[in-house]
Parts: sequence; structure tokens; C-alpha cells
Amino acid sequence: MKKLLIIGIGAGDPEYVTVQAVNALNQVDVFFVMDKGPAKEKLVALRKEIIERYVRNRDYRIVEVSSPERKVGEADYVGTVEDLNRDKQQIVERLIAQELGDDECGAFLVWGDPSLYDSTMRIIDAISQSGRHAFDYRVIPGISSVQALAAQHRVALNAIGRPFEVTNGRTLAEGFPHGVDSIVVMLDSKNTFRQVSNEDLDIYWGAYVGTPDEILIAGKLRDVMDDIERVRAQARRRHGWIMDTYLLKRRSGGTGV
Amino acid sequence: MKKLLIIGIGAGDPEYVTVQAVNALNQVDVFFVMDKGPAKEKLVALRKEIIERYVRNRDYRIVEVSSPERKVGEADYVGTVEDLNRDKQQIVERLIAQELGDDECGAFLVWGDPSLYDSTMRIIDAISQSGRHAFDYRVIPGISSVQALAAQHRVALNAIGRPFEVTNGRTLAEGFPHGVDSIVVMLDSKNTFRQVSNEDLDIYWGAYVGTPDEILIAGKLRDVMDDIERVRAQARRRHGWIMDTYLLKRRSGGTGV
Repeated sequence: MKKLLIIGIGAGDPEYVTVQAVNALNQVDVFFVMDKGPAKEKLVALRKEIIERYVRNRDYRIVEVSSPERKVGEADYVGTVEDLNRDKQQIVERLIAQELGDDECGAFLVWGDPSLYDSTMRIIDAISQSGRHAFDYRVIPGISSVQALAAQHRVALNAIGRPFEVTNGRTLAEGFPHGVDSIVVMLDSKNTFRQVSNEDLDIYWGAYVGTPDEILIAGKLRDVMDDIERVRAQARRRHGWIMDTYLLKRRSGGTGV
Repeated sequence: MKKLLIIGIGAGDPEYVTVQAVNALNQVDVFFVMDKGPAKEKLVALRKEIIERYVRNRDYRIVEVSSPERKVGEADYVGTVEDLNRDKQQIVERLIAQELGDDECGAFLVWGDPSLYDSTMRIIDAISQSGRHAFDYRVIPGISSVQALAAQHRVALNAIGRPFEVTNGRTLAEGFPHGVDSIVVMLDSKNTFRQVSNEDLDIYWGAYVGTPDEILIAGKLRDVMDDIERVRAQARRRHGWIMDTYLLKRRSGGTGV
């Protein structure tokens, strides 16, 4: 039986990799690497660094494929992502059929945690459900950028006894969500925090968190939002890409259990 | 200078420990262990197992203290937790003052991830802010029970382009939150999922996730909620304690990026 592993490799620092992930990496015959966009080179290099660092005394091969890119600016975001995932699914089906031998183990290394804003599980699940290919698969959790951000800022995600929300720039543009006082915003390329600066919020912002390029800024949102926008633009120019996340907390909220 | 590490050791499986945490464990002179309740013995044993498994060629000591317990059933939940944290803070201050030598490194091992429903960071921060004790501290993220649950069920936490919320039984009792279609519920001892069974939801439930005692149940909420309630009660009786979490997803939602 063919076997697939979806391995969360953590968000940035190669030391975020878990012992479970290290053991999983050491069972792999074929690593499938599929990246895209301006960060592609850097991300592919980081994946290879992790493989070289942790795999011991084992032969493996790496199969690189170009990831189809999402059409930017389409009105129907969900529809666009679904189209993209269908394209990716065709590629992954070809990889499973042609690049993975019987009784071999293949792996996708997922940035951060596979359960959060990543489509790999969904694509593999769809292929599994289709019945067109016989394989087993397993998911290995990883440290997400949300947790890396909180750890580096040494701040709790939730206020005492209160919920918190993980969201994205597009959704935050509709307003600060009701019923929560802490939110983490991912995938925001438009400084959407400006649109909620009428609220009394603290922001904990981080870019390239856990890497040598890490930048952290924290403070009252109104006081630091111009700094963040400026530093973000500079960093993006310098590196050619940016990966950033931020936590917004209502100032009245606690920070504990 | 005294040094403190708040180390997330993951939720259940000792292999959830990250390479960063292993390296941190190997710098520690004193481990402070503070557990409570019916799971205390098991949790203390699991912490010691992690220390023994990962610390190499280094002398360390373990200081065990009884954790003060939260008064159960008080109307003012937040106030009760704040009182509890003040009691804990006194204990931690004594540990830093009396049990940690100058230039020594002390550590608290936190179940799951320190940023999520845990008070250790808040307590250490309050002590640091008080100025009464000079020390540096650092936070090491860990795999949370939320991620472990998602990985074992092989399910994404968010629907495509949509937010998700982490909440608790007390908050869910007020109703399924607005504006989100995926929620993870922690700290629910009352089968609160029953109260939202009028909604069209799938549930992914797990107890002792990542351990040899792991139990997973998934399905349409209305179809499986009686099973979960029964299995949960049985497991709690058998083990004397339970640690469980669940994900609720609206059936209309997608499951991808």
C-alpha cells in the first residue's frame, strides 16, 4: 500500500519541528515540494534545510513541481480557491500515480500546521474519497505562526475564560468580530488593522517570526500602526516577500487562563 | 541573572515535543512541577517521562508544589481565576526567590501550548512587571490539543477563507457564535454540544488525544452526540479524569485553505 504523510514543519524556525515530525521525515522515500510566488525560492530552501538536517542514513528523492497560482483580485474568493485546489488535486494525483512506487512513503511538508489555512489535507482527502488511488495517509501537527507569534511576544492568545478567533484580512475588513476580544489575523496584505483603529486595541505584530529576519512590534494599535505599516513595506521591499501575522486584543480584556 | 523557561510540551504524545523544546529542556537546572486535581498523578508522571526521555548528560532537580485549586461553581468565573492566579503567583515568587539560584535556569512545563488557556505566562509576566525579582524569561511554543485533534481527525480547522474560533463550554452555552462556521471547544465538562444540536453541524470529538488511551468520534452532531456523551462518561469513570476537546463545523462550510 502506498503511504502519504502530511507533515507540519512549523512556522519559520527549523527547531519548531517536533520529534514526531523528525521520526516521520525518516520514513519518507519521496518528498513532494510544491511552492509558488516570490517566496518560493526561500520556502523551497527552508524545506530542503529541514530534510537535510533531520533525515539520517536514509535515501530519499525530492520531486519539485510548480504550484498553480491563485488568480488575484477575483470577486469570488472561495470559488477561486476551489478552482485552485482542483488544479492542485490533478497535480497531486499525478504525483501519487507516477512518482510514488507501491509500498513507498511520500510526504508533503506543510509550513506551520496542516489544519490552519492550508489546503493539503483537503486535497488529499478528496483524492482518497474519489477511490481512484489506493493509499493510506496520516497528518503530523506543527507549530503554527499563530503560536510562534504568541510565544515570541510572550502573550496569551485568549483573555481569562474568553474565546479567541483566527481570521484573515478579508474577513477583518468587515469589522472587528462580535463576541470575542482577541483575534489573530493571517493572510492580510492590506494593513487591515487600520480599519479597526477606532477600537481600543493592543496589537502584537510579527514578520518572519522564528527566523533570523524576525521583526516584532507591539503596543496600542493607534500608537504603532504607522510604524507597522512602514516597517512592513520596507521589509517586503528588502526581502521581495513577507510573511506576517498579528494578534489584536481589546485593552479591557485580561491575559490569563 | 536568573532565567526562566515556559516550555510547551505538547498535548499528550511525548513525540509532540519540538526540537526547540528538547534543546530548552537541556538547559534547565530546576523543573517546577505544579499540578492538581484527579489527573495530577498522571500529568506529573507524563512530565517526568518527557524530562527523562529528552534530557541528556545533565544534572537537574525537580521541585514539586501543590497547585491551589479553583473554587468550582462560583458565579464569577473570571474573578475566581484571577484569585487563583494570585495564589499561584505567590507560590511562583517563592520558587523563584528560594528554589532558583543566581545564574540558574528554571522551567515550567506547560501542557499543550503556553498561549492557549494557560495562566503560566500571565503569572510570570506579573512577577516580572512587579520588579521584585530580577530574571529573564522565554516562551517555547508547543502543539496544542486543538492541533492534535485536527491532525488525528485529518480535518482542517477553518473553511476556505473563513475564520474559526477557539472557545470553552461556558461560552458555547450562550449559543453558537455569530460570524464563524468552525469552532473548537475546550474545557467543557457538561456536554454543551447538546445545546447547539438544533444547528446543522458536524462534530469531531477526541479524548486523551495523542496518547495510547485516545478515543475519536466524528459525525453529524445529532447522530453521534449520544454516543459521545456515553463514551465520555465511561472513559471518565475508568480513568478518574478526562481531557477532551471537540471541533464543530457547519455542514455547509468547505474544509480547505
